[in-house]
Amino acid sequence: MSISPPALPPEFHEIAKRVNNWGRWGAADEIGTLNLITDDVVHTAARSIRTGRRIPLALPLQADGVQTGLIPGRVNPLHAMVQINQELFGPGTVATSDDAVTMGLQAATHWDALTHASHSGKIYNGRPATTITPHTRAEFSGIDKARHVVSRGVLLDVARAKGLDRLAGGHAVTPEDLDEAAEFAGITVRAGDIVLVRTGQIQVYFTGDKHGYGYPSPGLSVRTPEWFHARDVAAVANDTLTFEIFPPEIEDLWLPVHALDLVEMGMLQGQNWNLEELSTACAEEKRYSFLLSAMPEPFVGGTGTPVAPVAIL
Amino acid sequence: MSISPPALPPEFHEIAKRVNNWGRWGAADEIGTLNLITDDVVHTAARSIRTGRRIPLALPLQADGVQTGLIPGRVNPLHAMVQINQELFGPGTVATSDDAVTMGLQAATHWDALTHASHSGKIYNGRPATTITPHTRAEFSGIDKARHVVSRGVLLDVARAKGLDRLAGGHAVTPEDLDEAAEFAGITVRAGDIVLVRTGQIQVYFTGDKHGYGYPSPGLSVRTPEWFHARDVAAVANDTLTFEIFPPEIEDLWLPVHALDLVEMGMLQGQNWNLEELSTACAEEKRYSFLLSAMPEPFVGGTGTPVAPVAIL
Amino acid sequence: MSISPPALPPEFHEIAKRVNNWGRWGAADEIGTLNLITDDVVHTAARSIRTGRRIPLALPLQADGVQTGLIPGRVNPLHAMVQINQELFGPGTVATSDDAVTMGLQAATHWDALTHASHSGKIYNGRPATTITPHTRAEFSGIDKARHVVSRGVLLDVARAKGLDRLAGGHAVTPEDLDEAAEFAGITVRAGDIVLVRTGQIQVYFTGDKHGYGYPSPGLSVRTPEWFHARDVAAVANDTLTFEIFPPEIEDLWLPVHALDLVEMGMLQGQNWNLEELSTACAEEKRYSFLLSAMPEPFVGGTGTPVAPVAIL
Amino acid sequence: MSISPPALPPEFHEIAKRVNNWGRWGAADEIGTLNLITDDVVHTAARSIRTGRRIPLALPLQADGVQTGLIPGRVNPLHAMVQINQELFGPGTVATSDDAVTMGLQAATHWDALTHASHSGKIYNGRPATTITPHTRAEFSGIDKARHVVSRGVLLDVARAKGLDRLAGGHAVTPEDLDEAAEFAGITVRAGDIVLVRTGQIQVYFTGDKHGYGYPSPGLSVRTPEWFHARDVAAVANDTLTFEIFPPEIEDLWLPVHALDLVEMGMLQGQNWNLEELSTACAEEKRYSFLLSAMPEPFVGGTGTPVAPVAIL
Repeated sequence: MSISPPALPPEFHEIAKRVNNWGRWGAADEIGTLNLITDDVVHTAARSIRTGRRIPLALPLQADGVQTGLIPGRVNPLHAMVQINQELFGPGTVATSDDAVTMGLQAATHWDALTHASHSGKIYNGRPATTITPHTRAEFSGIDKARHVVSRGVLLDVARAKGLDRLAGGHAVTPEDLDEAAEFAGITVRAGDIVLVRTGQIQVYFTGDKHGYGYPSPGLSVRTPEWFHARDVAAVANDTLTFEIFPPEIEDLWLPVHALDLVEMGMLQGQNWNLEELSTACAEEKRYSFLLSAMPEPFVGGTGTPVAPVAIL
Repeated sequence: MSISPPALPPEFHEIAKRVNNWGRWGAADEIGTLNLITDDVVHTAARSIRTGRRIPLALPLQADGVQTGLIPGRVNPLHAMVQINQELFGPGTVATSDDAVTMGLQAATHWDALTHASHSGKIYNGRPATTITPHTRAEFSGIDKARHVVSRGVLLDVARAKGLDRLAGGHAVTPEDLDEAAEFAGITVRAGDIVLVRTGQIQVYFTGDKHGYGYPSPGLSVRTPEWFHARDVAAVANDTLTFEIFPPEIEDLWLPVHALDLVEMGMLQGQNWNLEELSTACAEEKRYSFLLSAMPEPFVGGTGTPVAPVAIL
Repeated sequence: MSISPPALPPEFHEIAKRVNNWGRWGAADEIGTLNLITDDVVHTAARSIRTGRRIPLALPLQADGVQTGLIPGRVNPLHAMVQINQELFGPGTVATSDDAVTMGLQAATHWDALTHASHSGKIYNGRPATTITPHTRAEFSGIDKARHVVSRGVLLDVARAKGLDRLAGGHAVTPEDLDEAAEFAGITVRAGDIVLVRTGQIQVYFTGDKHGYGYPSPGLSVRTPEWFHARDVAAVANDTLTFEIFPPEIEDLWLPVHALDLVEMGMLQGQNWNLEELSTACAEEKRYSFLLSAMPEPFVGGTGTPVAPVAIL
Repeated sequence: MSISPPALPPEFHEIAKRVNNWGRWGAADEIGTLNLITDDVVHTAARSIRTGRRIPLALPLQADGVQTGLIPGRVNPLHAMVQINQELFGPGTVATSDDAVTMGLQAATHWDALTHASHSGKIYNGRPATTITPHTRAEFSGIDKARHVVSRGVLLDVARAKGLDRLAGGHAVTPEDLDEAAEFAGITVRAGDIVLVRTGQIQVYFTGDKHGYGYPSPGLSVRTPEWFHARDVAAVANDTLTFEIFPPEIEDLWLPVHALDLVEMGMLQGQNWNLEELSTACAEEKRYSFLLSAMPEPFVGGTGTPVAPVAIL
């Protein structure tokens, strides 16, 4: 094979250099920007709870989920009863029901672990990508290492700030869009915040058009990692299948935001979050910050996990 | 078959009558005591956050989990990589890794849905147990209905209150034990609280003795549902496989606490919660209340769910 | 609900009466027409082996299988490596690779067990349909009871007999079509034979049109069970998703052939068998009988199973 | 890491040289000794059918299978109903039941694909072991390539030939043992035969002692590959968990038979075959050859597969 593979373009590497966090929390670090969520940050975040209203952000887990079969192995939940009202201790005794599931860890509302992406043979903190194996799964930066994902949550409602129900399929959410949404919210993003970016795209899934939900999709621009980096954001999630604009802004440069956020910055990404009810609630209450709890299921070595996030207003 | 099945004994039915909540929140209710977690309860609970320290309570999700194969279908996670550093868009592009899992919903650190138990043909709120089917799974009171499981958490550290590392295998945790632990903690359990009862039994699992972890096990006495009912507790979890003492206190009366908590009261139960780190933290900080977020993964019609709870101190 | 459910129409019950085999092999029987495959039948069938040429009839098992997601729970194989070249006994030792799969038992090339269908509350041999439970699965007539599925195989190439590549979507294969194909083959169907009926429909799947493969589909007419019954056929398989014509010939009478073959006659049905290579081979060799081995994977209580049939010519 | 890994010992490499089949069927070959099963071999094998009696050789597929959890990812079947008597087309219509399974492909009665083992970075025919990936699984010599596994089967009943119910745990089955069993059977092993070697070890599993079944286990000696190679045997299966004697004959030389059979010779191996009923039948009929059909389920790229073999006597 004498054809050398297309390298990632220079513009990618320039941004990468600017947002790179390798070594920032030591050579042994496996959690990246989650280090920014200090106890103090959480203590302060607790003050964002004004009413105690709780908004769950996960999609229902069911066979009719967002996956269409296009991504190999990323299967919607196959959920089956293995016991129904079974009188395990004999007739007339108390009965129990049990169920089991098979699903892709990135299939539904989920967090990507830092190890979900690699480029140029590397994962976060400069470790070799070969440390992910079928046997150990992710030896470093598995999702089980992300043990404390609770912080102040901030909703940047890009669609609502623009007066739209949802952004168009081809809309790349830019730093300027994020500024606009922050201004609309009257909020300043702080170090350690978890930022939720709403595009409204998930409405397409709710209409039953799964393919249209995935493609074409609005999503984060390759320019946003610098915006998050400048503000020391701890994690970002949104309401799309691919997180970043898809197809990409720059021809043949696929998944650059994944590479920048996960590999270079070491920042968790969340996808398929349902931000519709939260959008309404924030608009009603005229405030866009809250305590966000979004604890990963601790799959050892997992490169992702379903998550059931809750915003506590 | 002319032998009529052994009915549940009169003493069971007497307690059942006293703790029964059917109809209390209307005939349409599917969530039972979670109704007690009002926005006000959560708003007040937020004041329990004093330092922002976060303690995760889930066991690692891995093949070497707490299940031994004794409970049919309740399988430890089978977690496999379906993609590793896969350059989906061609050589040299950003690569991704994906994984998938098969597991019992009640296999690890979990919530039982109200529908996990039935007796005498009934589930919570008097509905027929036959509303659980392979096709719909739990039509009513599935775990996806329990959408807002965030409240004040209270640790009743029964083992520590007695000066023990862990309770003996045959120890039934009684209302008196709970009183003792509350007094030790200097705390009054309130309506809407989620109570975590620590026996220390999970240490047996950590030593590698899975069978010993499950049996014989300390656990809640058949007398405790009345204690929880009197205080309008919203949910209870502990650090054992079976939740209640196992084998049971009363011969041939298997799983009476399940029947009382889930079916009669309509109160969520949690099992296999790791309360060790929390026990140490509460002892260090000399306070036993915190904000607890323990959101179910919303499996539609699920009779249980893995959960990744976090105590925010 | 005062509307009584639509009963199966009289014409169904009339055919049912004529093909019913309940009690024919005793009240304890669980395998139906497989009883017709005696040792003598197999011994004689061995003479059909003239060249030793072997034609496998199973579709490849892969994520891109015939299922489209329309049938709940019937999932294409999710096949993942759990070990790759793992040196379990230390570096430099012999390495092994292991894989695991999740799939619907009726998802690919499969046999329906007799219990796959029920009607009017009954399964084969008059047993109650309620003997299928989540706990025991099929207590009677599970696929594990079908232990000896080897016999003479006969290809009735209905499409080729008509000079067609494949039958049209709306074509119900009638007894007359079967006679025509038998005559084309120069063969007389005998007691204990396993009959393979070729429509050519699986070519639609090979073109990538999965939905078109399933619907509309040619398939067996409601009149064919009598034809098979009259000849004491042991089992029937074909190259379609639904086995019988779909949508059905008689409005609102769904899956009548399933009910007649499986429930009334107690005759195994096979679906999604790839008969293309066999069709070519039989045409080349000008003979349409062979030894057929199509052993079920013995899933205890299974209502179906993937199968890897082979025709030995 | 300056410690170089222990190389496989010289005695291994000497045998490897003698049994190596790389290139024998061309550089593109993926099926090894299955090439030895010609149509003529099968045609002649058909004459072994004398009575038509069929003996199935697969263990029941169930949760209580032979796996104990010691081999990571090799899970016993988790088999669940996803539909039970579901009237998909409305009340009163024909109902169907469906099930799904999760299992290790090497967990039950199975074939190892040639790619199940590798050593020194190579798989069969000298290809790099790195051609097995999570994405493609086995790109070469996957079990789906083994499309025609039907031939003469020969039972070498080593235990019965010695007048034993079963061989002792530490018994390595040697070439001399195979000769003795062949002589006992009055049979000459021929090119293209599939040889079944009976130790009787599977009785230990039937007693409920799963750990004792796996360890210590009788099994094939490192000296047997040369015996099979000299006779051009097409495939070998037996009634043990590990196929070869376990723990091994030569200290620290783990799984040498796997490496010799699968990697060097390119010969399929079968494990956990139930040869008890066959042993009785062969002794009754005083003949030890038959037609054997043991078709792999064609998992694309699979490194193994459950199989439901049948001996046709």
